[in-house]
Amino acid sequence: MKATIRIMLKAGVLDPQGKAIEGALSGLGFEGVNAVRQGKVIVLDLAEDDPAAARESVDAMCRSLLANPVIETYDIDLSGASSDP
Amino acid sequence: MKATIRIMLKAGVLDPQGKAIEGALSGLGFEGVNAVRQGKVIVLDLAEDDPAAARESVDAMCRSLLANPVIETYDIDLSGASSDP
Repeated sequence: MKATIRIMLKAGVLDPQGKAIEGALSGLGFEGVNAVRQGKVIVLDLAEDDPAAARESVDAMCRSLLANPVIETYDIDLSGASSDP
Repeated sequence: MKATIRIMLKAGVLDPQGKAIEGALSGLGFEGVNAVRQGKVIVLDLAEDDPAAARESVDAMCRSLLANPVIETYDIDLSGASSDP
């Protein structure tokens, strides 16, 4: 099954990449952009077919490697579960 | 309204970050990961309230700054539309 992990900086944490994009968009003449935040998306193709086991395993991957829980939040989306009819 | 842009490398394009994550996960003992792709997610807070106008404007931003259409694909998700009941 497929797991899509979205990792974003927490709300209060300064996001220099987002600020750079905001400045560049404004420089290009795009108006009406109030705020920009940039994050990462990681798509995993897993051999695991059980959604609960897959979520647990992906959560462990996030905590130990993919995300920095001190400054980042992550959410996990699973798709292609074999338990789906 | 809020626009969430997900930018991924096209399927045939080598993704060194994804490969690095795949190697690191395997080194940490996580098994059953067949493939990893990494992309970017950009969240824009827009003053525009009309979904059609917002999508058009975000699409122009992607083409001119945020994504490289030669090697990347992007998809746009709009939420918080004022036209929603």
